[in-house]
Amino acid sequence: METGTKKSRRKGRGREGRIALREAASQKRPVKAGLIGGTYKPLTDTDLEKINKAALEILETIGIADATQEVVELATQKGAFVNEHGRLCFPAALVEDLIAVAAKSYTVHSRSSAFSDVVVGGYHVNYATSGEAVTMLDPESLTFRSSTLEDLYDCGRLVDTLDNIHQFGQTVIPNELQDLFVHDLNVAYVAITSTQKPCEMTFQDVNSIDAALEMFDMVAGGPGKFIERPFVSFGGCPIVSPLKFGEDNLNVLVKSSRLGLISDIAIAPQAGATAPAALAGTLAQVTAEGLACLSIVNMIRPGCPMTFAIWPFVSDLRTGAFSGGSGEEALMMASCAQIGRYYDLPTSVAACMSDSKLPDAQAGFEKGITAVTAGLAGANRILESAGMLGSLMGCSLEAMVIDNDMLGVAQRVLAGLEVNDETLSIDVIRETVLGPGHYLGHPQTISRMETDFLYPEIADRSAPGVWESEGSPDIFDQAKKKVRKVLKTHYPDHISAELDAKLRSKFPIKLSKEKMGMK
Amino acid sequence: METGTKKSRRKGRGREGRIALREAASQKRPVKAGLIGGTYKPLTDTDLEKINKAALEILETIGIADATQEVVELATQKGAFVNEHGRLCFPAALVEDLIAVAAKSYTVHSRSSAFSDVVVGGYHVNYATSGEAVTMLDPESLTFRSSTLEDLYDCGRLVDTLDNIHQFGQTVIPNELQDLFVHDLNVAYVAITSTQKPCEMTFQDVNSIDAALEMFDMVAGGPGKFIERPFVSFGGCPIVSPLKFGEDNLNVLVKSSRLGLISDIAIAPQAGATAPAALAGTLAQVTAEGLACLSIVNMIRPGCPMTFAIWPFVSDLRTGAFSGGSGEEALMMASCAQIGRYYDLPTSVAACMSDSKLPDAQAGFEKGITAVTAGLAGANRILESAGMLGSLMGCSLEAMVIDNDMLGVAQRVLAGLEVNDETLSIDVIRETVLGPGHYLGHPQTISRMETDFLYPEIADRSAPGVWESEGSPDIFDQAKKKVRKVLKTHYPDHISAELDAKLRSKFPIKLSKEKMGMK
Repeated sequence: METGTKKSRRKGRGREGRIALREAASQKRPVKAGLIGGTYKPLTDTDLEKINKAALEILETIGIADATQEVVELATQKGAFVNEHGRLCFPAALVEDLIAVAAKSYTVHSRSSAFSDVVVGGYHVNYATSGEAVTMLDPESLTFRSSTLEDLYDCGRLVDTLDNIHQFGQTVIPNELQDLFVHDLNVAYVAITSTQKPCEMTFQDVNSIDAALEMFDMVAGGPGKFIERPFVSFGGCPIVSPLKFGEDNLNVLVKSSRLGLISDIAIAPQAGATAPAALAGTLAQVTAEGLACLSIVNMIRPGCPMTFAIWPFVSDLRTGAFSGGSGEEALMMASCAQIGRYYDLPTSVAACMSDSKLPDAQAGFEKGITAVTAGLAGANRILESAGMLGSLMGCSLEAMVIDNDMLGVAQRVLAGLEVNDETLSIDVIRETVLGPGHYLGHPQTISRMETDFLYPEIADRSAPGVWESEGSPDIFDQAKKKVRKVLKTHYPDHISAELDAKLRSKFPIKLSKEKMGMK
Repeated sequence: METGTKKSRRKGRGREGRIALREAASQKRPVKAGLIGGTYKPLTDTDLEKINKAALEILETIGIADATQEVVELATQKGAFVNEHGRLCFPAALVEDLIAVAAKSYTVHSRSSAFSDVVVGGYHVNYATSGEAVTMLDPESLTFRSSTLEDLYDCGRLVDTLDNIHQFGQTVIPNELQDLFVHDLNVAYVAITSTQKPCEMTFQDVNSIDAALEMFDMVAGGPGKFIERPFVSFGGCPIVSPLKFGEDNLNVLVKSSRLGLISDIAIAPQAGATAPAALAGTLAQVTAEGLACLSIVNMIRPGCPMTFAIWPFVSDLRTGAFSGGSGEEALMMASCAQIGRYYDLPTSVAACMSDSKLPDAQAGFEKGITAVTAGLAGANRILESAGMLGSLMGCSLEAMVIDNDMLGVAQRVLAGLEVNDETLSIDVIRETVLGPGHYLGHPQTISRMETDFLYPEIADRSAPGVWESEGSPDIFDQAKKKVRKVLKTHYPDHISAELDAKLRSKFPIKLSKEKMGMK
């Protein structure tokens, strides 16, 4: 998808060679984008039917408040109605018809053959960053500081190097960019310059969409090219729970649907605060909220891709604060993946939203448990899945590197194992038992070493004595080393110098060429 | 089950009061021993049938080497045969008959109403320590030192305080006790003095069994009482993979079966070293090895409780070393839980065998992922589940405290959520949406605060600013504090002074009264 010529500012063994090597290596590994989940089913079929019925009842009898005039008009024309409380209500039969025409899947494309497209639908599972935190963890002082555009760029080029993260979604807000248009265009610029993996971003302002599309078309090779093969999906939260629309994001949803863009929303009521403390009640409410958005999108443009992104958050009821790392959270997100499959809709959920402020053991187990359960439940895109700390308050590059290894373990579980006459290995067992008595040198062992087993990048498997002799490092120490190395050396040349010059002349790009390793 | 009077050495508000408080609190919590798993099924029904068929073929046509004369005699009388390689082979029909008469479940009892019995069978899930490591992590120098009897006692009294660990299995070897009889009797003594939770231990020597049973009978209230309500199960590894018996542990298995004790074995071939690198082949082999042990036990005493404990380990094929924290490991252990359910046998698996040497983020995610997948797959007892580090080379009290919180999250996922008219909360949603607009003060929220949500003991959920003001601690720091406090204050009075004096006069007890907080 790249246009123009290769940037001349860096030497190397050639872009094509590097891509070919990467492609060859990734084909062998047991994990990849789009593995098949669905072997974990937290809800029974009866549970799913009850939740569906409750959600439809909520939509028909309680409805959603604060619809814009535009949405009220288009929805009532299609069969919705405004009730005596001024709330927009959706008859069950209408919602069912709209579910039936909704997109069952969509693809967010990669811009390089070295990376996989993200196919969103069925039981395919992909892991992505996102989070839009407002701070970054300083790994030395162990304090959080305001995040910047440069941080977002660093996150992107780090994701570019991490094999188990399949999509780069917006990790942090560039707080220094107060102007919403400037903000949105710079986030879009980072998306295309830091990585060629599929991306996700959120428009703060509906008025940024046209300019961003122009930018993406320039990258894609000309007007109208982006939409043919979109490499970015567009976030936003059109619902303010419980059961209200939020005007700004609803406007983005409407405009995106008119344009046929991928509406990659998230609906995040918080059990015990903006949704019932009874977990099933939260599932019913968030399902209703998700179906309301799906209805609007499909009233505007039947089949327009939208993520059925129902993300029930959990409160710590001792404080009322959001808690992202709990078992309740893992359970509810996995349940939502299953609800999405019930409707056969493309889904996302959130995972890895640890409450820890550091990449410590707490972050490890909270992330590991939420990541693997979401995947096994068959969530199509698992967002927030790398780098986030402090209940989404902050991001950490070191955590992202550690999470890449964590996601590898989760994906290896997902990848499952093949049971057939060859893998059951009865002849191999017989030969070995009657022969050498161990399998170490057996041809099967050697041939399966790379295809069946995943090796971590920084996680330590050395013997205790070796580890002690290296100064007893923890994985945070190893992650710091990896981050320093990547930030010092990895300046991706994902768009040409000519294109970059054009973008900089047309849009208010604030990311310096120096930061990007350009002369 | 306690005999004699309360020890006078410590004051307090009364044992009964403490127990009642603990009982009341544990009844409210959403997690407990014996939650129901089985919602995650890594293998299909066809996979299970193929693995069964392969295991039966292995048992009939390859067989197990190195059976003792005693075992050969009893097995051939029952229909097994010795093949031309001198291997003991089991016809499929014989094995199927023995599976049919095997115990479907057993119970390891608690000695206090404050703790649950561990029911092993069906889809019940319980988490336990174990591991028999030879070193302990020094949390200050970050080095491993040889483990002692006092370490084992400290592990036990720490487990006594950790709600999410349901059984105390032997974490470390007291290396200073070289005499096997002295070793075994002291391990047995620690099991009964450090906690009243259900226990597990391993006999190093078959000749220790009678003396240990005498000790347990004294605790249980007289000769023959222990077996009526056993509070200890007995480990051991009767198989040396691939497909050989190990003499010492086979002798323990035979003797335990004759006595009707719970044989709580573990069979741990290592994929790529002592089992095929093809994961399905490892499952076939370990299933055959497990069924061989089950056959022996049920030939001796039909229905004698035995854990179908097939524990496939994984090699890092770059080094050949055991790696316990991998995705392959999580996947295979979950598969073995499912194989156990296929036969309807009581199972154990191993999880949480992190390769990290520290309770860091790596330990966190490796433990979290392996713990939750084993539970969701419905493993009845999940061993090694707290405190183990360095691929089972070492144990850490701090890791154990952290793992207790980790196991809480895993168990909260397992506990699932209830979907019914009340929990779907349509009326609560309607009232809230048309009323205050949030659920914070709703009676439902308050009533479900303790029953539906689990709160961690040391995991941090504070806001980043609060956390920074406390010096940016990680969970390892918090665990050190908790361990110091428990070791300084928690001296359980689980047996009376009179009984203790009797045990000390009868058996070679090496744990000092001073260490146990006694005068």
